[in-house]
Amino acid sequence: MPKRRSKLRIAMVGHAFMGRAHSNAMRQANRFFDLPFDIEMAVVVGRDADRAEAARAQFGFAEASIDLEATLAREDIDLIDVATPNDTHAPITLAALKAGKNVMCEKPLALNTREAKSMAALAKKKGLKVGMWHNYRRCPAATLAQKIVARGDIGKIRHVRAVYLQDWLSDASTPASWRTDASVCGSGAHGDLNAHLIDMTHFLTGLRFTDVSAIEATFIKSRKDGSGKKRTVDVDDALAFLARFDNGAIGTFEATRSAPGRKNYNKIELSGEKGSIVWNLERMNELAVFRFDGPADTRGFQTVMCMDDVHPYAGQWWPDGHIIGYEHTFVHTLVDFVLSMRGKKPFSPSFDDGVAVQQVLDASLKAAKTRRWVKVS
Amino acid sequence: MPKRRSKLRIAMVGHAFMGRAHSNAMRQANRFFDLPFDIEMAVVVGRDADRAEAARAQFGFAEASIDLEATLAREDIDLIDVATPNDTHAPITLAALKAGKNVMCEKPLALNTREAKSMAALAKKKGLKVGMWHNYRRCPAATLAQKIVARGDIGKIRHVRAVYLQDWLSDASTPASWRTDASVCGSGAHGDLNAHLIDMTHFLTGLRFTDVSAIEATFIKSRKDGSGKKRTVDVDDALAFLARFDNGAIGTFEATRSAPGRKNYNKIELSGEKGSIVWNLERMNELAVFRFDGPADTRGFQTVMCMDDVHPYAGQWWPDGHIIGYEHTFVHTLVDFVLSMRGKKPFSPSFDDGVAVQQVLDASLKAAKTRRWVKVS
Amino acid sequence: MPKRRSKLRIAMVGHAFMGRAHSNAMRQANRFFDLPFDIEMAVVVGRDADRAEAARAQFGFAEASIDLEATLAREDIDLIDVATPNDTHAPITLAALKAGKNVMCEKPLALNTREAKSMAALAKKKGLKVGMWHNYRRCPAATLAQKIVARGDIGKIRHVRAVYLQDWLSDASTPASWRTDASVCGSGAHGDLNAHLIDMTHFLTGLRFTDVSAIEATFIKSRKDGSGKKRTVDVDDALAFLARFDNGAIGTFEATRSAPGRKNYNKIELSGEKGSIVWNLERMNELAVFRFDGPADTRGFQTVMCMDDVHPYAGQWWPDGHIIGYEHTFVHTLVDFVLSMRGKKPFSPSFDDGVAVQQVLDASLKAAKTRRWVKVS
Amino acid sequence: MPKRRSKLRIAMVGHAFMGRAHSNAMRQANRFFDLPFDIEMAVVVGRDADRAEAARAQFGFAEASIDLEATLAREDIDLIDVATPNDTHAPITLAALKAGKNVMCEKPLALNTREAKSMAALAKKKGLKVGMWHNYRRCPAATLAQKIVARGDIGKIRHVRAVYLQDWLSDASTPASWRTDASVCGSGAHGDLNAHLIDMTHFLTGLRFTDVSAIEATFIKSRKDGSGKKRTVDVDDALAFLARFDNGAIGTFEATRSAPGRKNYNKIELSGEKGSIVWNLERMNELAVFRFDGPADTRGFQTVMCMDDVHPYAGQWWPDGHIIGYEHTFVHTLVDFVLSMRGKKPFSPSFDDGVAVQQVLDASLKAAKTRRWVKVS
Repeated sequence: MPKRRSKLRIAMVGHAFMGRAHSNAMRQANRFFDLPFDIEMAVVVGRDADRAEAARAQFGFAEASIDLEATLAREDIDLIDVATPNDTHAPITLAALKAGKNVMCEKPLALNTREAKSMAALAKKKGLKVGMWHNYRRCPAATLAQKIVARGDIGKIRHVRAVYLQDWLSDASTPASWRTDASVCGSGAHGDLNAHLIDMTHFLTGLRFTDVSAIEATFIKSRKDGSGKKRTVDVDDALAFLARFDNGAIGTFEATRSAPGRKNYNKIELSGEKGSIVWNLERMNELAVFRFDGPADTRGFQTVMCMDDVHPYAGQWWPDGHIIGYEHTFVHTLVDFVLSMRGKKPFSPSFDDGVAVQQVLDASLKAAKTRRWVKVS
Repeated sequence: MPKRRSKLRIAMVGHAFMGRAHSNAMRQANRFFDLPFDIEMAVVVGRDADRAEAARAQFGFAEASIDLEATLAREDIDLIDVATPNDTHAPITLAALKAGKNVMCEKPLALNTREAKSMAALAKKKGLKVGMWHNYRRCPAATLAQKIVARGDIGKIRHVRAVYLQDWLSDASTPASWRTDASVCGSGAHGDLNAHLIDMTHFLTGLRFTDVSAIEATFIKSRKDGSGKKRTVDVDDALAFLARFDNGAIGTFEATRSAPGRKNYNKIELSGEKGSIVWNLERMNELAVFRFDGPADTRGFQTVMCMDDVHPYAGQWWPDGHIIGYEHTFVHTLVDFVLSMRGKKPFSPSFDDGVAVQQVLDASLKAAKTRRWVKVS
Repeated sequence: MPKRRSKLRIAMVGHAFMGRAHSNAMRQANRFFDLPFDIEMAVVVGRDADRAEAARAQFGFAEASIDLEATLAREDIDLIDVATPNDTHAPITLAALKAGKNVMCEKPLALNTREAKSMAALAKKKGLKVGMWHNYRRCPAATLAQKIVARGDIGKIRHVRAVYLQDWLSDASTPASWRTDASVCGSGAHGDLNAHLIDMTHFLTGLRFTDVSAIEATFIKSRKDGSGKKRTVDVDDALAFLARFDNGAIGTFEATRSAPGRKNYNKIELSGEKGSIVWNLERMNELAVFRFDGPADTRGFQTVMCMDDVHPYAGQWWPDGHIIGYEHTFVHTLVDFVLSMRGKKPFSPSFDDGVAVQQVLDASLKAAKTRRWVKVS
Repeated sequence: MPKRRSKLRIAMVGHAFMGRAHSNAMRQANRFFDLPFDIEMAVVVGRDADRAEAARAQFGFAEASIDLEATLAREDIDLIDVATPNDTHAPITLAALKAGKNVMCEKPLALNTREAKSMAALAKKKGLKVGMWHNYRRCPAATLAQKIVARGDIGKIRHVRAVYLQDWLSDASTPASWRTDASVCGSGAHGDLNAHLIDMTHFLTGLRFTDVSAIEATFIKSRKDGSGKKRTVDVDDALAFLARFDNGAIGTFEATRSAPGRKNYNKIELSGEKGSIVWNLERMNELAVFRFDGPADTRGFQTVMCMDDVHPYAGQWWPDGHIIGYEHTFVHTLVDFVLSMRGKKPFSPSFDDGVAVQQVLDASLKAAKTRRWVKVS
């Protein structure tokens, strides 16, 4: 007989792409993991009643609401999940914290470092449990990569080599959207994709960026929006940067949406003193590992299929070699957050981690604009 | 507002590995696909009350039962899902059909052709909706492969080259289980893994096997069971066979659980007159395609990332290049079955498809035992 | 100062594709390896004076001749290199042995086992140094694979999985040639490509084939020759076979020239008790190795770049990671043969190895024709 | 009968690694290509008589010499091949040009732009035939890549993504050598490896670098030399840079000798408006090509095996899919240079190309030292 468990009642704000992924995690977490709480999908909050109701039905929430304030005031809500567009992360999170709610927030934490810091500060002051959905950290192969680095298998890190390549803006006829409008998203490929690379670098290496130099490009200067109206594109199509780290390592980073043939090519290679690892989201169930050990004549990158029960999270799903996908990384994130609510173990990525990402994003965007090396404060 | 939909009430018999995968499909189908029915997880049926109840709670069924007969007699159940060990597929399915229920049955349909045929015959006689969970057909890359072959891109098929390699029985200390006991599972790697290769060949090519020659091996002749007792292994560790097809094509097939480093390496390569395709479950989101067309100097296998909305099923999940996993193939199977219940479109794999697989399995097992070429009847 | 060395004077019979590869080896061996002999390219022997002279000039021989008998009678020739079409391997080799010459012979040794045995017998009787050009044995990655197996890294072999796939006969308009004429070549893909797979299996595993079952197909029954005349194709386009080995291992083999997209895809995978290796001629500088050892969470196939000085032959060529190609395997073969002429170390593949290949070829061809399992004598 | 051809008499200066590769090209060019000249390996010039004589014997030159001046004065020498360490490229080339000799020079052309320009200027003034050994341009896959770009298959270039990764200096115990001494080699990985990336970028894209920002690192600050004496390492272990191009494209470049597991990983990816290509020296016989064309559901990177006679140079070597290696790129370079001597067709890379590489090398080294964006003059 399963143990009787407390309930964890969640209100999710936003119900587009991220809402879809978060709500899936809420439905799946208790099915595949042994948790101290039963997750209850209490409310989905939107701005339009019909669409909120459709989302409720589709995702399986108990209620739909368009009144965020009222939702935050409810006593029976334990956790606010922020799954809205970037420019609302800060105000919603701050409001939720003020209302005494625990918060999980989508990345990026905010549109800039200042905002991000205020969120982290308020969370600490309130003593609430908060976390971020940098879900790729919990791709089993990425979690494994972190373990490998942490136990010293590849030694001190010397190189970070990170690219996040997509191709959906290659075509000049792809329409303008909020993702090409700086007032809503802050930046283009940079905030969207480099944010992942930066957080993953923090996670995998434990290093901190000290200074950066950057270059950006907008290949298509204007696009028509859905109604055929021409809109200026005021965000980057691509932004690449060089980085120095606090241990002397150096890194190259590139985010672009104009790399034909690359769909979701989020690839990080770390070179250390004693070995290397390569992780690639498009083949997210595999990790490549090289070590200078074993017989000299059979050294080479090992392609590790990260799906058997010696690997992080894998044992909860399917037998050896039966792979999982993108959405599972959200399940793992939620699972660990829920576990951290009961236990003493802190959850990361924390809001401080979100601040750290924002600092690197801000510094590299500034470096691109000013064409100078910029210190990461 | 979502449309009001009829309910489809399912009783699932069995709740081990396959029950886990099927019930997940039941939970997810309505969340990601627009279906004419709301799937209701009505009952899970087991043999032990406590374990059935635990499964109910874990998987999210309304009720648990250990009374199959009573469940079959219920008026409010629309579909029986057979997710039990191989030797019970036939009796449960036949009982369900007799009770007038629609049936989805795990593969293999039965332990032999005779049984399988009786199931197909009864389903036809009763006019009930039945289908099989050969879930790999609905891996998007496999579904795409079938489309490519069907539209003639690679021409008439000449070669089928199929292997299903695992390694969990490589080690002599892996314990005996029902999977190494012929009385429960019929055969070893053969029935488990070659069944997949055979069905996939039928699906992808539309060809029929005409005759086969086979070889089998049991590398570890006895294993200790969980209690330390020595058990004879009376099933194959590996079985390979040659095949001739009705169009003159030839094929090689191999199933083994003793291929170190291969976890779930289910790989099929088709060579046709005009091109080739290669599908591999371990990288199930990709399909390799070769065609003798386009500029002569840039011909080569194309690695197609099968996750954008031009690909089968992919548009219902996540954006381009965000991959899915093993469990999604069950969701797709259930979705198509449910769609077929309302529409006129027949569902496949049908029980006749299951019979066809069984005929090839039987013929090749006989060929291995007799060391002769055997006709597939 | 280099040491003064004896000369090794070679007469090469035949000057087509293989003559080109052999003569290249003769020119390169002393340039990159320290040998006890200076190789002298004394004579190239052909059937047409003009073409023989052109070959002489092109390849760098001292003389050209169309008189084989006279060449064999020359006292100053140490080694006859047989680089002619298959049907002349036996008569030329026998004549050379009778004339007291050492012989290197292209594969296949003969058109059938009887012929092959007579060649091996005569060589032994005469006490001459003979060898075969199964050049792929000396691809560094293949030589390494053999070392790995021999030192027990992957344990007792259980599976051999071998394919040699090409695509140049896929197209019905590819003209007839001696390669599609049984009277000259004996068989089609079988003798040409399976011969390589069989020898490589012998080399890598040390196992012997005990019995085989086979299937063959000729997809295009007739082709036009160069002059537009229709010719019946009386050899296989493809031949696949199953094999049992003397240690209980089983194998699958397939040779075809009708696999679109596969150019020279000669791939062998061995599964042993403790590990696996995969070798593929199209990426001949790499070897994939899997072992059940090291940390459990980072097991996976290692892709070994076989070009640094811990690898066979590699140290004689270029720095780490600077790859070599097809032709180098002939250089290595000649180098080892030359080394064996001075030392006591026997050279392999020997004529006995050639006989062994022929026995498996004959048995599997017979198995295909008779549709029965055939013992390898 | 082969045509009577003029002789092209070469004196090669230097006989280490590059001399080995160049002399191999001299021996092989006439064997595999139809050239207007017979190449004669007239003299090898060194600094030590014994070692020069050993090189003569090993490589197959007619004479050895330690008198460069006398060699340059010989009337019977047509071409001086400069295969010496970097710091002597300029003085030897200038002397050869003054002596009226044609020159092929190893990369880098010089230690800095000023020197390089003087060499290019003198060659032009003298009207002599000169060229550089940027041999990777003539890897068949790279030559094909250039053709693909030039014919517009991938459209206007937007991204260059280039890395040259090696690992032989990862280990702190690797000894100091001239390659870690700035006075001989100018810079470390930068001049050695980035030089290749820069030239290849020029070759493939036809673009020019406009400005660069760079970062460098020396991970091991001192190493012991062969005699155990501690030497300061005053060159970079790694240098990465960002670049802007004259058409608005952006690029990332990285050279390192501290990337464990990467042996000779020289990889360039170009993203254009309409497609992409990826070239990698470790798998130099393959080219990956992506185009937004053909059926939407089968788009993906094509892995082109660049060895059949539709590919550059390939038809002169072996049948389809029989691969070639590193050394062949030198043969192709020499072949094209020799062809250009007779014809009107200019040879590239020219000394101007060498100057252009040097300008980018200088600018990026300066950018690394000054931590500022630097214009490429």
